Amino acid sequence: MQSLQEKAAEWSGVDAEDAFAIDGTNLYEKLGLQTFINLSTNFYERVYADEEEWFRSIFSKSKKEDAIQNQYEFFVQRMGGPPLYSQRKGHPALIGRHRPFPVTHRAAERWLNHMQQALDATSDIDLDSKTKMLNFFRHTAFFLVAGDELKNQNQAAPCKNCKHPGKHGAV
Amino acid sequence: MQSLQEKAAEWSGVDAEDAFAIDGTNLYEKLGLQTFINLSTNFYERVYADEEEWFRSIFSKSKKEDAIQNQYEFFVQRMGGPPLYSQRKGHPALIGRHRPFPVTHRAAERWLNHMQQALDATSDIDLDSKTKMLNFFRHTAFFLVAGDELKNQNQAAPCKNCKHPGKHGAV
Repeated sequence: MQSLQEKAAEWSGVDAEDAFAIDGTNLYEKLGLQTFINLSTNFYERVYADEEEWFRSIFSKSKKEDAIQNQYEFFVQRMGGPPLYSQRKGHPALIGRHRPFPVTHRAAERWLNHMQQALDATSDIDLDSKTKMLNFFRHTAFFLVAGDELKNQNQAAPCKNCKHPGKHGAV
Repeated sequence: MQSLQEKAAEWSGVDAEDAFAIDGTNLYEKLGLQTFINLSTNFYERVYADEEEWFRSIFSKSKKEDAIQNQYEFFVQRMGGPPLYSQRKGHPALIGRHRPFPVTHRAAERWLNHMQQALDATSDIDLDSKTKMLNFFRHTAFFLVAGDELKNQNQAAPCKNCKHPGKHGAV
């Protein structure tokens, strides 16, 4: 059975080596805190104004300013900066924390489309950094789609009276 | 509703500040790779020889050498060293990857008991590092118990004919 990582690579078209090339450079030191804040602000401005209600509604239970802070603190921590996210919220636990949301292939593509535009709209991100970040985001988005599928596998399990119980599978 | 982080702090008795004090020192630089390999080897020697079958069986689908490598690579990455884990397996995704296992309060306490003994049996870990690591491990173990409960909440959801459907809750 394919691992989370293998599914992420296949669906995203970005293998682990390219996805984690962000670890070869300290992007936080290169870009600075304000650039990350600007990027997440640009991203969520788009998301919260998305004309597609199905996508916009995924975020409807969070305040925009909280979504921005959660995202840039995670990016800063993951890309070489201080562990702002864990100090405030604990482990990133990406799959666990995305559990309430329908992380489908379609949602991943739309997320990435907004992120591509947000990267283009944020000044001071050089092309090399942008490429590294997009590879990381693309692989990660489909890693979360793979994580979402685990949820669907297990959901049907405890219903002992169902005629067609869900399949089980380990990670 | 309590967040994952709040549950972890309450159940473990270790708040986020103490748990993530590991980020105030570079424990990888202080202790070195071999110490992390020794620690995980000591830990899994105990786990795979545990007289309690209910606990030992949680690990029965993995080879001991794989379990050791997964653990020390994650510890090295999380405690200031190179991102060995992500290069090989992708995001840690702690809750997602623990999904197949029954991470109960009882299992967390037994895991921690083995880890305490493994820390004591590993030379070259000074008292301050040991305290920081134990706080991190204790908080993290109960963070995963909190993550495991999310799984149980959702499991009962899709069974539309059940008389007592599980409660729902967002992270």
